[in-house]
Parts: sequence; C-alpha cells; structure tokens
Amino acid sequence: MKIIVDGMGGDNAPAAVVEGAVLASRAIPHHIALIGKEELLAAELKKHSYEAEKISIIDATEVISNEEAPVRAVRSKKDSSIVKGINMVKNGEGDIFVSAGSTGALLAGGLFILGRIPGIDRPALASVYPIIGGRASLLVDAGANSDCKPNNLLEFGIMGNIYMEKVLGRKNPTVGLVNIGAEASKGSTLTKAAYSLLEQSDMNFIGNVEGRDVPAGACDVIVTDGFSGNVLLKLTEGMALQMMKTLKARFTAGVKAKLGAALLLDKIREMKQEFDYSEYGGAPILGVRGPIVKMHGSSNANAVKNTIIKAVPYAEEKVVDIIQNSVLEIEEITLSENDKF
Amino acid sequence: MKIIVDGMGGDNAPAAVVEGAVLASRAIPHHIALIGKEELLAAELKKHSYEAEKISIIDATEVISNEEAPVRAVRSKKDSSIVKGINMVKNGEGDIFVSAGSTGALLAGGLFILGRIPGIDRPALASVYPIIGGRASLLVDAGANSDCKPNNLLEFGIMGNIYMEKVLGRKNPTVGLVNIGAEASKGSTLTKAAYSLLEQSDMNFIGNVEGRDVPAGACDVIVTDGFSGNVLLKLTEGMALQMMKTLKARFTAGVKAKLGAALLLDKIREMKQEFDYSEYGGAPILGVRGPIVKMHGSSNANAVKNTIIKAVPYAEEKVVDIIQNSVLEIEEITLSENDKF
Repeated sequence: MKIIVDGMGGDNAPAAVVEGAVLASRAIPHHIALIGKEELLAAELKKHSYEAEKISIIDATEVISNEEAPVRAVRSKKDSSIVKGINMVKNGEGDIFVSAGSTGALLAGGLFILGRIPGIDRPALASVYPIIGGRASLLVDAGANSDCKPNNLLEFGIMGNIYMEKVLGRKNPTVGLVNIGAEASKGSTLTKAAYSLLEQSDMNFIGNVEGRDVPAGACDVIVTDGFSGNVLLKLTEGMALQMMKTLKARFTAGVKAKLGAALLLDKIREMKQEFDYSEYGGAPILGVRGPIVKMHGSSNANAVKNTIIKAVPYAEEKVVDIIQNSVLEIEEITLSENDKF
Repeated sequence: MKIIVDGMGGDNAPAAVVEGAVLASRAIPHHIALIGKEELLAAELKKHSYEAEKISIIDATEVISNEEAPVRAVRSKKDSSIVKGINMVKNGEGDIFVSAGSTGALLAGGLFILGRIPGIDRPALASVYPIIGGRASLLVDAGANSDCKPNNLLEFGIMGNIYMEKVLGRKNPTVGLVNIGAEASKGSTLTKAAYSLLEQSDMNFIGNVEGRDVPAGACDVIVTDGFSGNVLLKLTEGMALQMMKTLKARFTAGVKAKLGAALLLDKIREMKQEFDYSEYGGAPILGVRGPIVKMHGSSNANAVKNTIIKAVPYAEEKVVDIIQNSVLEIEEITLSENDKF
C-alpha cells in the first residue's frame, strides 16, 4: 500500500509533515510518498533517519494556499501537491491522499478529479468530535455543505456509519440527528424530513440529539448539515479553549490557588490532552471515488504521524466501495419517501 | 408599574415563584400580581412576610403544561395563567408578563393575543448568552424560528441591538452574524444574504462570527436563525456541564488531587457561578406588541427574583415602541435589497 502525503500543506509544512511521515513510517509497513517541492522536501528528509525504500519524494512545483479560491486553484494549478496527489489516487499510483492543506481545495479536488460516488448527491467532510471523558463521536457534515436537502443528511448518516464501523472500529454505532427538540415532530423543515428518511434506514438510528447532549457523547455518529456542523465543531473547540483559559486565570490568582493548581497539574494536563484532536486522526472526505483525509492545519509532527497511521484503514477496508454498495439503500429510502407525495 | 408573574409556570412552581416574587418586591417599588390558582398561590404567599399593597393574586383556573401543543393550548385554555396574563398586558392591566412556563405557549400567546409589531415578520426569543470570564452576550434567535429568511435575521439584529442597549445597558453594542467563515462571501444562502442586509443597517455590525469566537465574547448581539441559535445555546450549556463534570471526576481522584481541589474550592465555585443563567435575567420575546419575558424552567426563588427585577426596564424603556419605530429602517433596507434584482 502506498500513502501519498501532501508535503506542502498546513501551518508547519514541510518540516512537521516530513518528520511526521518519518515517524509514521517506523510504525507501519506501508510506503509513504511525500509530494511537493522536491528540494524542500529532500532537505527536510535528510535531517532524519528512515528506511529509504519506505519513503519517497514526488515533485510538485506548485502550492495551493488557504487563501486561494478553491475551485479556481484546483482548475489552474495542475502541478500543485493537492491536484497531483489526488490524481495519483485516481490513477492507482497511490491508495490514499493525506493533506493538511486547504479544506476547500481538497473538497474541490475530490469532486473534480475523483468525482462523486454515483448515487451520492453531496460528499461531506467527517470530523472526529472529541468527547471529554468519553469515546469520540464522528460529526458529518463538518462544513462541506452549508445548504442541505433531506437526502443529503441521510447520505451523511450512512457514510458516517460505515466510516465509524470500518475505520474507527465501533460496531453497530448509534446515529443521531442534531435537532432542537427530542421528538420526531420537532425541528426545521430540513430536520423533520431528514428524520423520516433516517428512520427508514437499517442503521442504529436513535433519533434526535440536542445541542446539550452532543458533548456528553449522546451518539457515535452525529448527523447534521454542514452549517450547523461547522458551528457545532468550532463552538466546542471555542468553549474548551475559553474554559481552560478561565481555569488558568483563576487557578493562578493568589498563593493558595497556585498551591492547589500545583497539586492538580497532572489532572489538568490529562484534561487538555482529551481535547487534543491529533490523537484521533484526520477528517475524511466521504462520498468521493477515492480516500482523501484532511489533517488539522496546525498539525505538528506527532499529529501528522497519527493522522497517517489512522488513515490506513480508510483505504484498506475499502470504505469507498462499501459506500458505493450502500447507495441502493439510499435510493430506495428516498424513492419511497417521494412516493408519499 | 404592574408586573404580572405567572405563578404556575416552571418546575418549582408555585413555591419558588411566589418566594421569588416576594424577594423581588422588597427590591423594587413596583406592584407584582401573581396569576394562577388562587388557593395555591395564597397558601404559598402566607408563608412569607410582604407589603400587602405591593403583591396581589389574580385567579386563573387553568394551567398550560410544557407537554401540550402550544397553539392548541393557547386557543383552548382561555383561563390559563399564560393566556390571562398576556391578555392583561394587552388590555393595559399590566405592564409586563413574566413566566417560567412553556416557551412555545408564551410565543403562541404573544403572537395570537398581542400580535406582531407591524413590520416585524417573525418575533424571536432572545437569550442571554453567558461568557465565561467576560460580559454576557445576547443571542437572537434562541429557538423561536427554525426556518428563517434573510430579513428575519436583520430583524433579530435590530431588535437585539435595541434590547441590549435599553435593557442590558450596553451602549453601541457590537452585532455579529453566526457564520462558517470570516469573509462576507462565506456561508449558506441564508447567511450570505443576511450579511448584506445587516451591513446596510445603522448598527455596529462587525461581520461574521464563527463558532470558535462566540464563547470568547466576540460580539454583544449574536444574530442567527433559531435552529443554529438553539443548538449553539444548548451546546454551550452541555459543554460547560460536561467540563465541570470531568473536572469534578478528575479533581476527586486520589488524595493529592482532593487536597488540591480543596484549596481551589472558592475558585471552582466562582466558575460555576459564571454559568448561572439566573444571574442574568430571563429571555424576552422580541417583536410582539407587549413585553413578555420567559424565565428558565428550573428557576429557583433567587432566579425568579432576578428575572423579575431585570425585566423592569423592558417595560420602562418602552422597548416595544422603539422596535416599532425601527421598522422603517428594516423596510428601507429590505426594499433596497429587492431593488437589486
């Protein structure tokens, strides 16, 4: 198996990406191909010791930045690490593409180069959602689609369910729909219709989950439109940051508090670690015809290493094929729903 | 001034409501009329000492529960505390109605009995949004309208802006739009169009705020549709709960941790207090022709007291009239936007 890693993506590229790839290659048997500006990558790689047959460099002369309009960038920069890396997956020269680069460009690249899985209307970004003091959930969609139709939410649920089971290894995961009320009759036009579709699926659908329940780990797969999903994910991050900041301010105010905090230092560190996204791997783009994983933009070497290692089963377990095979179920449910009108 | 207080609403009614009303009446010069089942209220009131001319009881034989369908309940239960209380505001027999009862029934009652302020398409529920370690924001809409149009978001902003200035006393508040990206071009069809409307207003509109920034107090008035607003508010509550729970679990694990926690007890209590909604007063329904304030359903006597006291400026400052006068601005902006097409 060959893992293509974008050497140019993210705030700490190429140094952290190259180091992370070296660390990952010590842990897994697969070949890692670093893609990007050859000279830069070679200079970084030289700093580390690694098995020469397990890491290679593929030259790509262009870089797509976060500031560029994604569609235009993907169309024009044919020799960028993102476009070239995704093309390698398409042509069978690589099994998976991992990048800390522009999410928009990765989505656009996935759509234009790999294409949608036939029957999937809208590919989605799935993101691990850390649960403090519990097992992480998976949030779909984390921001790829800000306007959704009910069938999109059904797709998100089915794809997330497959990813949770095959890649994150949780059997028969619970699937919940983000909504503003527990009853099926509650919510927006979108969520009411999506509820009805999700209910007809073979998944372990547990109904609506409210904002209050999500951080407590109410379900394994959190289904929502990309707008709410993005707000939800970023708000969780923001709340954790704000609370840790307040904790720090209060726990360092006065001698007594400082003494108490010193005694609790290891506990506070443990809590911080639970928010560490890098422990959980990256965010897959689900619904395109090949595995692409988005890493956090600020990934350090350790995060890169974890993301690469945890990306392996996305390719190995043939998740793309399984999603393809589930399309029939999606079509049957949406058709039966249309029959009602 | 006469404040009508729903004696039957909330988890702790009538005891906590009556006690809270007594406490409030010691702090403010206004008359408080408790509305509900006369016998029950009189029995509770007898337990306290109060100035007889400052508290009265108005009999209402019916109660609307949280489980009832709001519209049907408001239409059928004419002698309920909610319907009768709102009618008193309508008829000038009271200046404001405060209730910990069903939010849906309060909204329906506001709409059917008082009616919309002419020119306001959709009344909204505004909720104080606690900022840990900072001044609270105001979130509009907190859940009254799960499907919104761009002009609704403009209305929410303008009404929230007025309430923040006149009732919560913050001059020239900053107004932000919840969105999934900082640039004006980002977001859903709804938020992109709403951005354009908000930008044309006379408010101190600071643009988009992302989920990450909201808990840090990015803006004074947080504008969003009722679906996202409800998710946002409840998620914040859920995150705070979950983090305090984890804190407690970790800080009581082992002798060393317990000792540390003992030294930090007052700091932890301070943090908990920052989440205490009852300190901030209730949630006004904005956009109906009279002031209605929703109290938290689990309000204790102290929360009831605070909500009553903090509700006074909603009536005194003539917020309803000021919103009425702002309708011209809303119409001009939405008309100018229509001209573009």
